Amino acid sequence: MAYDAIETPFGKTDRIVGGAATYVAYAASFFVKPINQVSIVGNDFEQAELDALKKRGVNLEGVEMVKDKKSFFWSGRYHMDMNTRDTLITDLNCFLDFNPVIPESYQDSEFLMLGNILPTLQMSVVEQMKKRPRLIAMDTMNYWMDTAMDDLKKLIAVVDVVMVNDSEARQLSGEFSLVKAARAIMKMGPKFLIIKKGEHGALLFHGDQVFVAPALPLEEVFDPTGAGDTFAGGFIGHLAHTKDISFNNMKTAIIVGSAMASFCVEKFGPTRLKEITRADIDSRIRQFVDLVNFDIELI
Amino acid sequence: MAYDAIETPFGKTDRIVGGAATYVAYAASFFVKPINQVSIVGNDFEQAELDALKKRGVNLEGVEMVKDKKSFFWSGRYHMDMNTRDTLITDLNCFLDFNPVIPESYQDSEFLMLGNILPTLQMSVVEQMKKRPRLIAMDTMNYWMDTAMDDLKKLIAVVDVVMVNDSEARQLSGEFSLVKAARAIMKMGPKFLIIKKGEHGALLFHGDQVFVAPALPLEEVFDPTGAGDTFAGGFIGHLAHTKDISFNNMKTAIIVGSAMASFCVEKFGPTRLKEITRADIDSRIRQFVDLVNFDIELI
Repeated sequence: MAYDAIETPFGKTDRIVGGAATYVAYAASFFVKPINQVSIVGNDFEQAELDALKKRGVNLEGVEMVKDKKSFFWSGRYHMDMNTRDTLITDLNCFLDFNPVIPESYQDSEFLMLGNILPTLQMSVVEQMKKRPRLIAMDTMNYWMDTAMDDLKKLIAVVDVVMVNDSEARQLSGEFSLVKAARAIMKMGPKFLIIKKGEHGALLFHGDQVFVAPALPLEEVFDPTGAGDTFAGGFIGHLAHTKDISFNNMKTAIIVGSAMASFCVEKFGPTRLKEITRADIDSRIRQFVDLVNFDIELI
Repeated sequence: MAYDAIETPFGKTDRIVGGAATYVAYAASFFVKPINQVSIVGNDFEQAELDALKKRGVNLEGVEMVKDKKSFFWSGRYHMDMNTRDTLITDLNCFLDFNPVIPESYQDSEFLMLGNILPTLQMSVVEQMKKRPRLIAMDTMNYWMDTAMDDLKKLIAVVDVVMVNDSEARQLSGEFSLVKAARAIMKMGPKFLIIKKGEHGALLFHGDQVFVAPALPLEEVFDPTGAGDTFAGGFIGHLAHTKDISFNNMKTAIIVGSAMASFCVEKFGPTRLKEITRADIDSRIRQFVDLVNFDIELI
């Protein structure tokens, strides 16, 4: 959980709540309660933001509040294509001492989503769970492939679902073909691999099966910050709600995640996630059905 | 219709039949007969290739045979990512004098596919049709946007379906967002726009409606030459077979085109298109159904 300053071709915000755990929690909160949040915030983190999460059924017992440090702060500027960005500032602040502690009350959690952070911290969360969750999903990024590949591979070996983008899948596997990359990554341990391709949608791999989810063609991506985390939150939220971890249900979960991400990019930070209703989500999911449905009988 | 020399990271061929019209005809021939081909070939064009097309129901009356010149020849080398290529040789040869003449026997054609060539030649074909075909579709490329934009826009104004890739859609419209680009291009005249995104699939726009077709995730793209033309051939072939030019049937046509293109890239040039059977195609189309189908009831 963090604060971000974001500049896009469409506008600028000096300070807005962010962080992977924030987006995951907001997105998942539409589908399942409680959400047992594990994170860390500094002395500048506003009570109103914590209250807003609590109101949505987010349990904050596992969120460490640091009195003498500020929250993680990131500032970035997106280029015109919205796929590339420059990081202007990264102030780790309280993140420097982050050592997640899983409260006793979280021990029965069945679905564990590991947001993007140092792989050893993700692993620490897994190791603290006395009973293995039914499903462990993880996100990561190229930075950890560059700096902590061994730790990352240890983590990948013990999770069920890995989420990466296309260039990360290539870096992690050393394969250019995404089909070959997927096979190589699943050999590292996970039974499911999700490759996120931004405006080109997402791929779900499981054994020899593959599912392709579209992204909603949008007139403008106003701010892509948090879209991947929001996708993850919708995905794990749907799985936790339905308690069904079959490949078939994961396809639906990916559509739910894609729908949530399509809202996220419409305004700065998690603004849209705070506004939308379950009816908005249902209507957006129906748009995804129309987007890909075709009549096979005619052929 | 032409000859190509192709080099990919997987191999090399010094001379293989090619050209947009060849790929369109092979792909469409699985769905409709006759195909009234309009093209030009030189004195080096092998009789066996002409016979192979004839055998598939391709009428060659509109194919000019030039006795004192060679066929169009293109030589190119693909880079590792298969999305970019260097042109090594372009010998226009007989193409220099190409002035398509539509035979009387072609005048009842209901579906017209204008392959990528000089826009004034595409326009000449349209103008020679005494009765406007029910559907006119066209392909083009960035080269004509750089060198003949005015002629291209005149043609776009009179066709029903425009096919371009994503960067061409951006160049043609001056819009970065593909949704905005689609709207701008449809304002130029056509009721339907197809944006081809290679490994990321294709988008079909019509008014405010949009359809997203996936590309089949392939282990290797062996040779992408002709994939776009093969897509066009499958698309128009399905429409001509069903005689249904509704948005709904165009969705299916795009899946048929995508399936045909997925075969094309498996071997050099049109090799795979000469090998496959209708059963192979049906099975590949069923793969596309599995690729995108998800269970909405669960949400």
